[in-house]
Amino acid sequence: MNKQITVVKDIKEMSKLSDEIRKKGEVISFVPTMGYLHQGHISLINEGRKRGNKLVVSIYVNPTQFGPNEDLSRYPQDFEGDFKKCEDASVDIIFYPDNSQMYPDGYKTYVNVEDLTENLCGASRPGHFKGVTTIVAKLFNIVKPHIAIFGEKDFQQLAVIRQMINDLNMNIEIVGMPIFREDDGLAMSSRNAYLSPEERKGALILYKTIGLVKELCNNGENDASRILKQAEIFIKLEPLAVIDYLKICDSESLKDVDKVGEETLFALAVKIGRTRLIDNYLF
Amino acid sequence: MNKQITVVKDIKEMSKLSDEIRKKGEVISFVPTMGYLHQGHISLINEGRKRGNKLVVSIYVNPTQFGPNEDLSRYPQDFEGDFKKCEDASVDIIFYPDNSQMYPDGYKTYVNVEDLTENLCGASRPGHFKGVTTIVAKLFNIVKPHIAIFGEKDFQQLAVIRQMINDLNMNIEIVGMPIFREDDGLAMSSRNAYLSPEERKGALILYKTIGLVKELCNNGENDASRILKQAEIFIKLEPLAVIDYLKICDSESLKDVDKVGEETLFALAVKIGRTRLIDNYLF
Repeated sequence: MNKQITVVKDIKEMSKLSDEIRKKGEVISFVPTMGYLHQGHISLINEGRKRGNKLVVSIYVNPTQFGPNEDLSRYPQDFEGDFKKCEDASVDIIFYPDNSQMYPDGYKTYVNVEDLTENLCGASRPGHFKGVTTIVAKLFNIVKPHIAIFGEKDFQQLAVIRQMINDLNMNIEIVGMPIFREDDGLAMSSRNAYLSPEERKGALILYKTIGLVKELCNNGENDASRILKQAEIFIKLEPLAVIDYLKICDSESLKDVDKVGEETLFALAVKIGRTRLIDNYLF
Repeated sequence: MNKQITVVKDIKEMSKLSDEIRKKGEVISFVPTMGYLHQGHISLINEGRKRGNKLVVSIYVNPTQFGPNEDLSRYPQDFEGDFKKCEDASVDIIFYPDNSQMYPDGYKTYVNVEDLTENLCGASRPGHFKGVTTIVAKLFNIVKPHIAIFGEKDFQQLAVIRQMINDLNMNIEIVGMPIFREDDGLAMSSRNAYLSPEERKGALILYKTIGLVKELCNNGENDASRILKQAEIFIKLEPLAVIDYLKICDSESLKDVDKVGEETLFALAVKIGRTRLIDNYLF
C-alpha cells in the first residue's frame, strides 16, 4: 500500500503547506512538470525523493511559454495517469493549479533572463523562456523548495533557470539530471506522443545525428562549421525531418563557438511532421 | 542605551540570518531604502517596528533604476548618519550590500511589471521600474520579510510592487505609508538635499499645485484637462520649475482619466534646476 498523495489545487493552500513543512525543518524537493509524465520525469522524481523529506511535483501546462502558433491547445494531458505514476514514485504532494489562479485577469509581471535566452530555442521560440522563468519563479515562490530538479534535455532551460536563481538570490539548489532515452535512443518527451508510427521512426534522426557528431569528433574533427554542415546533410536524408536549428556552442554562455572543445554543447531542434523535438550532447 | 544594531553586508549572511529568524517564528518587517534617511523613512521604520519582531532596513543605491543621464553618481549618501538614525529608531538589522554582490559580472535577470509602468514616471524614466522591481525582488528573496513598508510619495512604485507581489505569488504584506512633508508642505525626499536655498523655495510649487488642484475640485471642477491646464499655467509662474509631467489618472490602473472621481490620483513630476521632484494627491 502506497502512502497517501495530497493533491493541492489552491495556491494559498500550497504556500501554507510549504510554510508548515519548512517550519518543521523538513527539506522540500520539487519537480516542476507540464504533466503527461514519462520515465524522464520519473528519474527526476526519484532523484527528488532521495534529496528531500517532502517531494512536491507540480503539473501545470504553462500557457505563457507557448507561442501563438505552438501546440498549447493540443499539449497532451492525463492527470489520472500522472497521479498513478506519482503514487508509484512515492510523491508526497501534487500541486495542480489552474490558469485562473496562476494568471488571473490583469496579470502583468514577467521575469526575463537576457542574453542566455537569445540563441537556440530562444531564437526559434521568441518569448518562450520569459514564460518559463516567470512560471518557475511563481512556482518557487509558492512551493518554496530547498531543491528543484530539472532535466538536461532542456539544456538551455536549465542554464536559464540557474542564472535566474543566482541573479534573483533565490536560495534554491538546482539539480540537473541526464537525458532519459527510449531503448533506441530517442530522448523521452511528452511531445513524442504526437508522433505517428512512421514519424516515431523518423524521430530517431536526432539521436543518430548526435552519434554522427560524436563520431566526427572522435575522428579528430573539431571545426564547428564543418561538423554542422555534415550534420545538416545527414538530417536532410530523413524525409520527415525539417531542421529548426543545429548549433555548437559554449555550454555556459550558450554562444556559438568555432571549435569543439571541452564543455562544448551540440544542440539541435528538428521538426518531425508537426512535432518539434530537441536533443543535445555535451562534449 | 539603545540595543545593538547588526550591520550585514554579505547576501548569504543576511539570507541565513533571515532563515534563522523565521524558524523561530518571529515576524520580519522590512524597509528597503537608498539611504540618506529622512523623516519620511523614519515614519516607515516606525511602522515596521510596530508590525514585526525583527526590523530590517536595507541601504542600497540601486544602479539599475537610474537612467544613463540621471543622478546615480551624485545620489547623496551618508552611512554614518543613517546608522545613527536607525539606532535611534531601534532597527535590528541594517542590510548594506555592495554592487559587486548585488549585480556581479554576468548578471542577466530582470523582473518587469508591464502596463502599470507605462504612464507617469515610467514614461519619463524608461527602465526605471524594471530596475525597481528587480532590486525589490532580490531584496525580498534575501531578507525574506513577512511585511514590507513603502512610502506613498512613490505612488506608482508602490502600485507596481503590489502588482509584482501578487503576480509572482510572493507571500509578503505590502504596507503603504502617507507622504511625510516638511513644515511648509514640501514632500520629504533624499533629493531635496540637492536644492540650493533659492531652489528649495521654488520646490514648494509642487505642494502649492496640489493645493490649487484640490481647491479647483472643491469648487466643483472635475474635468481633468481643464484642471491640468490650470495647474500647468500655475507652475509656469515659478521660474525655476520645468514640468516633467502633470497627470490625473485612475489610482489602480494608472491610466489617464477624463474626470476626477473617487480613487483618482493627481501626480506630478517637476524639475527644479537639475533636481527632479515628484508629489501626488489621492482624491
